[in-house]
Amino acid sequence: MALFDLPLPELRSYRSPTPEPPGFDAFWSGTLASARRAATPAKVTEVSTPLRGITSYDVTFSGYAGQPVKAWLNRPAGATGPLPVVVEFIGYGGGRGLPIDWLLWASAGYAHLVMDTRGQGGSWRGGDTPDPDESGAGPSSPGFLTRGVLAPETMYYRRLYTDAARAVEVAAELPGVDASRLVVAGKSQGGALSLAAAGLVPEKVSAVASGVPFLCDIRRSVTITDSDPFHEVVRFLRANPHQASRVLATLDHIDVVHFAKRITAPAIVSVALMDAVCPPSGVFAAYNAIPAAKQIEVFEWDGHEGGRGFFDTAALEFVDDRLS
Amino acid sequence: MALFDLPLPELRSYRSPTPEPPGFDAFWSGTLASARRAATPAKVTEVSTPLRGITSYDVTFSGYAGQPVKAWLNRPAGATGPLPVVVEFIGYGGGRGLPIDWLLWASAGYAHLVMDTRGQGGSWRGGDTPDPDESGAGPSSPGFLTRGVLAPETMYYRRLYTDAARAVEVAAELPGVDASRLVVAGKSQGGALSLAAAGLVPEKVSAVASGVPFLCDIRRSVTITDSDPFHEVVRFLRANPHQASRVLATLDHIDVVHFAKRITAPAIVSVALMDAVCPPSGVFAAYNAIPAAKQIEVFEWDGHEGGRGFFDTAALEFVDDRLS
Amino acid sequence: MALFDLPLPELRSYRSPTPEPPGFDAFWSGTLASARRAATPAKVTEVSTPLRGITSYDVTFSGYAGQPVKAWLNRPAGATGPLPVVVEFIGYGGGRGLPIDWLLWASAGYAHLVMDTRGQGGSWRGGDTPDPDESGAGPSSPGFLTRGVLAPETMYYRRLYTDAARAVEVAAELPGVDASRLVVAGKSQGGALSLAAAGLVPEKVSAVASGVPFLCDIRRSVTITDSDPFHEVVRFLRANPHQASRVLATLDHIDVVHFAKRITAPAIVSVALMDAVCPPSGVFAAYNAIPAAKQIEVFEWDGHEGGRGFFDTAALEFVDDRLS
Amino acid sequence: MALFDLPLPELRSYRSPTPEPPGFDAFWSGTLASARRAATPAKVTEVSTPLRGITSYDVTFSGYAGQPVKAWLNRPAGATGPLPVVVEFIGYGGGRGLPIDWLLWASAGYAHLVMDTRGQGGSWRGGDTPDPDESGAGPSSPGFLTRGVLAPETMYYRRLYTDAARAVEVAAELPGVDASRLVVAGKSQGGALSLAAAGLVPEKVSAVASGVPFLCDIRRSVTITDSDPFHEVVRFLRANPHQASRVLATLDHIDVVHFAKRITAPAIVSVALMDAVCPPSGVFAAYNAIPAAKQIEVFEWDGHEGGRGFFDTAALEFVDDRLS
Amino acid sequence: MALFDLPLPELRSYRSPTPEPPGFDAFWSGTLASARRAATPAKVTEVSTPLRGITSYDVTFSGYAGQPVKAWLNRPAGATGPLPVVVEFIGYGGGRGLPIDWLLWASAGYAHLVMDTRGQGGSWRGGDTPDPDESGAGPSSPGFLTRGVLAPETMYYRRLYTDAARAVEVAAELPGVDASRLVVAGKSQGGALSLAAAGLVPEKVSAVASGVPFLCDIRRSVTITDSDPFHEVVRFLRANPHQASRVLATLDHIDVVHFAKRITAPAIVSVALMDAVCPPSGVFAAYNAIPAAKQIEVFEWDGHEGGRGFFDTAALEFVDDRLS
Amino acid sequence: MALFDLPLPELRSYRSPTPEPPGFDAFWSGTLASARRAATPAKVTEVSTPLRGITSYDVTFSGYAGQPVKAWLNRPAGATGPLPVVVEFIGYGGGRGLPIDWLLWASAGYAHLVMDTRGQGGSWRGGDTPDPDESGAGPSSPGFLTRGVLAPETMYYRRLYTDAARAVEVAAELPGVDASRLVVAGKSQGGALSLAAAGLVPEKVSAVASGVPFLCDIRRSVTITDSDPFHEVVRFLRANPHQASRVLATLDHIDVVHFAKRITAPAIVSVALMDAVCPPSGVFAAYNAIPAAKQIEVFEWDGHEGGRGFFDTAALEFVDDRLS
Repeated sequence: MALFDLPLPELRSYRSPTPEPPGFDAFWSGTLASARRAATPAKVTEVSTPLRGITSYDVTFSGYAGQPVKAWLNRPAGATGPLPVVVEFIGYGGGRGLPIDWLLWASAGYAHLVMDTRGQGGSWRGGDTPDPDESGAGPSSPGFLTRGVLAPETMYYRRLYTDAARAVEVAAELPGVDASRLVVAGKSQGGALSLAAAGLVPEKVSAVASGVPFLCDIRRSVTITDSDPFHEVVRFLRANPHQASRVLATLDHIDVVHFAKRITAPAIVSVALMDAVCPPSGVFAAYNAIPAAKQIEVFEWDGHEGGRGFFDTAALEFVDDRLS
Repeated sequence: MALFDLPLPELRSYRSPTPEPPGFDAFWSGTLASARRAATPAKVTEVSTPLRGITSYDVTFSGYAGQPVKAWLNRPAGATGPLPVVVEFIGYGGGRGLPIDWLLWASAGYAHLVMDTRGQGGSWRGGDTPDPDESGAGPSSPGFLTRGVLAPETMYYRRLYTDAARAVEVAAELPGVDASRLVVAGKSQGGALSLAAAGLVPEKVSAVASGVPFLCDIRRSVTITDSDPFHEVVRFLRANPHQASRVLATLDHIDVVHFAKRITAPAIVSVALMDAVCPPSGVFAAYNAIPAAKQIEVFEWDGHEGGRGFFDTAALEFVDDRLS
Repeated sequence: MALFDLPLPELRSYRSPTPEPPGFDAFWSGTLASARRAATPAKVTEVSTPLRGITSYDVTFSGYAGQPVKAWLNRPAGATGPLPVVVEFIGYGGGRGLPIDWLLWASAGYAHLVMDTRGQGGSWRGGDTPDPDESGAGPSSPGFLTRGVLAPETMYYRRLYTDAARAVEVAAELPGVDASRLVVAGKSQGGALSLAAAGLVPEKVSAVASGVPFLCDIRRSVTITDSDPFHEVVRFLRANPHQASRVLATLDHIDVVHFAKRITAPAIVSVALMDAVCPPSGVFAAYNAIPAAKQIEVFEWDGHEGGRGFFDTAALEFVDDRLS
Repeated sequence: MALFDLPLPELRSYRSPTPEPPGFDAFWSGTLASARRAATPAKVTEVSTPLRGITSYDVTFSGYAGQPVKAWLNRPAGATGPLPVVVEFIGYGGGRGLPIDWLLWASAGYAHLVMDTRGQGGSWRGGDTPDPDESGAGPSSPGFLTRGVLAPETMYYRRLYTDAARAVEVAAELPGVDASRLVVAGKSQGGALSLAAAGLVPEKVSAVASGVPFLCDIRRSVTITDSDPFHEVVRFLRANPHQASRVLATLDHIDVVHFAKRITAPAIVSVALMDAVCPPSGVFAAYNAIPAAKQIEVFEWDGHEGGRGFFDTAALEFVDDRLS
Repeated sequence: MALFDLPLPELRSYRSPTPEPPGFDAFWSGTLASARRAATPAKVTEVSTPLRGITSYDVTFSGYAGQPVKAWLNRPAGATGPLPVVVEFIGYGGGRGLPIDWLLWASAGYAHLVMDTRGQGGSWRGGDTPDPDESGAGPSSPGFLTRGVLAPETMYYRRLYTDAARAVEVAAELPGVDASRLVVAGKSQGGALSLAAAGLVPEKVSAVASGVPFLCDIRRSVTITDSDPFHEVVRFLRANPHQASRVLATLDHIDVVHFAKRITAPAIVSVALMDAVCPPSGVFAAYNAIPAAKQIEVFEWDGHEGGRGFFDTAALEFVDDRLS
Repeated sequence: MALFDLPLPELRSYRSPTPEPPGFDAFWSGTLASARRAATPAKVTEVSTPLRGITSYDVTFSGYAGQPVKAWLNRPAGATGPLPVVVEFIGYGGGRGLPIDWLLWASAGYAHLVMDTRGQGGSWRGGDTPDPDESGAGPSSPGFLTRGVLAPETMYYRRLYTDAARAVEVAAELPGVDASRLVVAGKSQGGALSLAAAGLVPEKVSAVASGVPFLCDIRRSVTITDSDPFHEVVRFLRANPHQASRVLATLDHIDVVHFAKRITAPAIVSVALMDAVCPPSGVFAAYNAIPAAKQIEVFEWDGHEGGRGFFDTAALEFVDDRLS
């Protein structure tokens, strides 16, 4: 994909024109409160892997409405004393896979909690967490972005964002963890979840590392790219044009821009200028909304790869620096 | 798509090698019995349309587990006396749309019940029926084919097939309908549902018109085409290879071949020899399993169009002939 | 296709900069006069179909140069007294197919004349009308848009537009029809033909329903999309660059914008903002040129689907309202 | 395209199972006789080019039904005495273009007549010959393969094959040409025309050079590839399935296999084993049917490029050898 | 990609029909001997990374003709005593990237030497090793597979295979390594290199883990897939058909099948049945040629993903088991 | 490709903003001086072809660093006296192929030297010239544009541009040639080389004919198209983002814009407005920089075909005019 979005100087000051939906705070605080009320203590069980340097645990914690959510916890083998902890969220379509798929943060000396993504894990890396949905919530385009999208109460991402905030709360209480050094991280959908979680439970989060985040400035993003998953919304609205304002109003409730405003922890973000999956204007709209200390890594030539190891390195260094 | 499946002479005698899964009858009769127990009477409300020749009704009936399922009922305006009735099922991804989208059977003098497809209707024609799913049932590939696919009890198509059988039962009891002349019809997924319903409640069905049916001879079909929706299964098994035998065993429960064996009504089926969406060997596997009187329309040059108006004409004539 | 044309506010006031070619009126009035001189009475023969609610007729009428053009006429079965009549034109590549393919307007209480498209009907729905072409008229790109395109006199669309105007004249004289309530309708190429016919014989037309019309603002449209059929022109001009001004001057004679100016009947038009086949600036250029009462349905999310049943409903209501 | 047709050893003995249609000889001899009766003498006019080594002429001769067909004649500048002459036919979609596009045979010392292809020349190299078609002959898929395809009398290729045979007769009578050394040549559609002409007027032809010929073993070829132009037939039959036997019977009249049987001149043919446009089994079916001396150049790795300069060299050497 | 190669039961016994080229052993032993003669001691320099659990080193060793080749060495931080060592090779187009890209084997307790791929690293993960090529060695298709392919002496893969064998020899001499427990591993091109190295220096290798290896049964593979990199050969032979036998004879010298025969260490291999990049018949041809203890992981649903974490787990367990 | 670059009026005055890199003249004069010092006399050997009108010679001359470069020399057969001479360069990926592939300029009365492209000739027309590269010069993306791109000294195009300048010098000294009438010509990469050579050895060149030249305004071009070969740079920078400024600084040394400034001969250039391979803004940037007499042929509808025979004709006429 050639350069297709705004030029970089305009991106640097781009702000989303979409206002926060009314009742945003109440919607999310109510949702979180319900989840907490329904929560039971996390279960943490060691699992066997061929790794000698990392000890892995299967974790089950209470997410949205107290529903069970799976995660892996990887820790440097033999580490004693409280460790800083990273909560990582996963890109669209993938699940938590296997413990050996997640080695970076434990190798760097962190406790590393990888939250499974409810219902996902059927496309490219397996998952283990169901997405119970009593409401059913009407038609959807194949994928997750339009599940339940006719109302904020029923939409899929309400459940998933709540899981993410809960994962942070759970991580802070894991044994052997230093809750004062808690990081949220992820890329693409995982990048969106890390910013959302940092905005939902800002008091718990010490640093944010969000790579090419998805779900930013949604009203614009769905009109400037043909790539999935954003195009799922377009497909849905073609089939259901009479629902357009309702659907967009629902999606406003998960637009990362509104969570970014609430972040208090220092944040590092990456953006790729040729990224048609998560267009750069959206990423900048979210980044520019963050009131805390922040740093953006601009990958001028990347598509949705978004820097890969180069961003990982920058993120590790940024986080090390902020937590010490 | 050039010819890619077996040559026509071999297709004519092709039989699926996959045996019926153990407990098949008990599984389905139990599911249906539960649905019937939870059922409440259908609601039928006239709706306004710009059509003068057809009267339309919004229908809500009790499907799987008594859950509400929407439908349209179209009748020739001013018709008096009981009419033969067609229950139609919809292709993958589409919902019931608008009453004006469904004119063929009412124009031909039938009462026409078009069942909405739960959860679908977000891709190309809108829908109105949610798919409540308390179990959540684990990861899935975007789409519907792998929803809940880890067990027969939780899979999406258990719910949808049950809706279809229930739609037949409901149609038979609609006022102004001659239940002794009840037809099931549809194309692609709708063709699969019509064969499935005819096998689930054979005593209610007087004729079947199934165009290029989906979900036939699934174990073979998923290996000979790259087209969605069959490819959803492949994608799921790439992410979750350890689940392959479980997933295939689940899918055996919805393989149309096993329902075809139970059909007692005369059936007309279409097949397209260049159809990569519903490969012809699968269609013939189902067709060849039907023990009742039957007729197959072979479209040698078609892909998944599967004959369109030519098959519609043949189906109308076949049905007229069988019901008179 | 993401948004790729002008933003909606600019579209709303966009006007084509291309002037009407000199001699436009004389060219078309002469062509029509010749066609009328060569005309013989239409032949209308009832045909058998499986439909009980609609009576169908095979129609042959005199089109361009008196050449025979086929049509279907569908009427509500048993209707007595003069009916309002709709003349419908077909999208690119398709022919009239079967009578059962055309149920909407008869179901709504109209006589419905569906004009076959000369030479077309070999791509997705069959046709029955030849396109005699004594001149041969030089090379063309596969397709119909560049047939005979080196001169207005020889181009294919001269013949087809004339057929369309003649279809209106013929429809007005059909038995059992109320010529004071005559509608032209169609989508894509059919949308272009409905606007062209309404501009060619404005005194015969009482209402226009044109969905995502093709052939609007041609000089711009061929430069902003890669999609066929507009791209046929580009392909032709690559092979014959020395003919560019001649070809574009020929195409000016069929640019819908110039016909729109002559429309006197109220018109409803649809446009789809992500439509790369019939780009929205062209549709607005034609719409904005209509001097009569008018209404535009904007489908913000659609590609060339252009609203489908939603536009059908709006069109039926608009027409009902205007004719009553 | 990977190897997709029969293995080479099977290709070497592959024969088309399609019998010659009844009346084949009478059909073609009648058509040719009519063309000859309507013929007028060719017009040959020198044209100016920037070439000093080649003299070019614009030629107009009488083709099918005496209709005018254009050609270029290139001769080595200053050549005196009668020259051997090559009649070349052009690939699908292209026209004769410019004289400078045709340098090979004149550079090799031949008079070189390049026949324009009626109606073509709108896709990639311009043309100058119209295709008058009084009959119109019904619907067609965009392209030339299904024009008039409902009957042998009306099909486009009847006209084009006749042009080709006439071009040979005209070439033999050009001034400065040695009619006893006349070659027909071409690639793809041009390869088909060279074999067809060599079968239609075998007594005029001294050698044949046919590269990757199109239109061989048509009934099989249309089922084993998705590539155009063969796929035009599939598209047509999807729209008009009731016409399939009629269409295929028409195409039998232009199947190169039946012309190959009538060739008496030595022939060199090329085939490419990965050629999805002109599948190798068709080429071998034609080649294997040639009763005269023959040679085949097998390009194992080529798609429809079919050897290019390597085949040109082989053809020049083969022809030189046969004519000396 | 649907199933496209031989059925699994035939794959299980499939043997390549291509004989070993004459002089194979002399060619490779001579090449290796030259490389050893030109070798200088490896340079190993610690590099700084953000990882606390892994210590990383930049390694430069003498590869083909003594030319410098880069590698990363990752070791569990603080490990004392000799460690088993894994030499890993990289997939096509990628370079060694960053130390943090390679965490699996060190996390499992191994010293892990990741060899950079000369000249590669410009497509998806960066590299640092040049590919000096004094000969230049004629034309090539973009990519590496046809570089120097006109003779075994000049081809690119001669240099790369030699680097791989040298990497094994170098790894065995690294400080802190237990040379009696040396593993070669990799996927795709890396899988080919691991089998090649295990065949070139079998006495040094204790276990092999080769995922979906490339370059197996080359003569067949290039004819049954259109995917790069195998298709580079086809492209080259289209441009240079007169070189085909020479090119194929050159490629015989790097066909993994001939190296597999020489392996003495136990080997685990993966194959994916829908893998169009490294077709399964090639993988089985290599696997079936291994005379040592062996195990194959068949991924029935995978394309070139080839099992990913599932194969990693199997490989770790297999290796652990063999080395203990 | 629809119009995607600047509008034509803006193109007509577009100038590249990229300054000439420091040391540009010294870099190239030093490189050329070295090449000249290492040069040995060209070898010219007649080769046999089937052409009677053209005599062909195999030429080997000393290019970059004195390395041997192949060429074909075609001359009108029997021409006596010194001829004007054209040096032609070849498009990306192709080699010199066969002498019969190059007939235009000899047919027009010129001696015609066709320079082979080192290392290329493996994609679509064969080649015979190796590209010795002692440095190896680090990773590259498949293709030639990023070979050695980390420094001006090592990059592939340094060698190729030098070959081109040397080919001009060699052509001027060929026997039977009038060095005062020397033309450089080519299309795409060949167009770039003709402009580069005309800027490197301006005193030797009498006219330039450059069709749709590649490698113009590189910094912009790589950001506005996804087409190869420009996209090779993007791919490389994705893998090696830390090298971006170095890579772009290297590419500045071969940006045709800087050579265009040094051209003193009259030049004809073509540009195609829908050309995504060599975007029109780049071509205009180079054209607008030429200080000599010049003419541009604008093909408004072409993609990278760039006018073909129409431009050939214009170029022949332009050159004839300038040389007489």
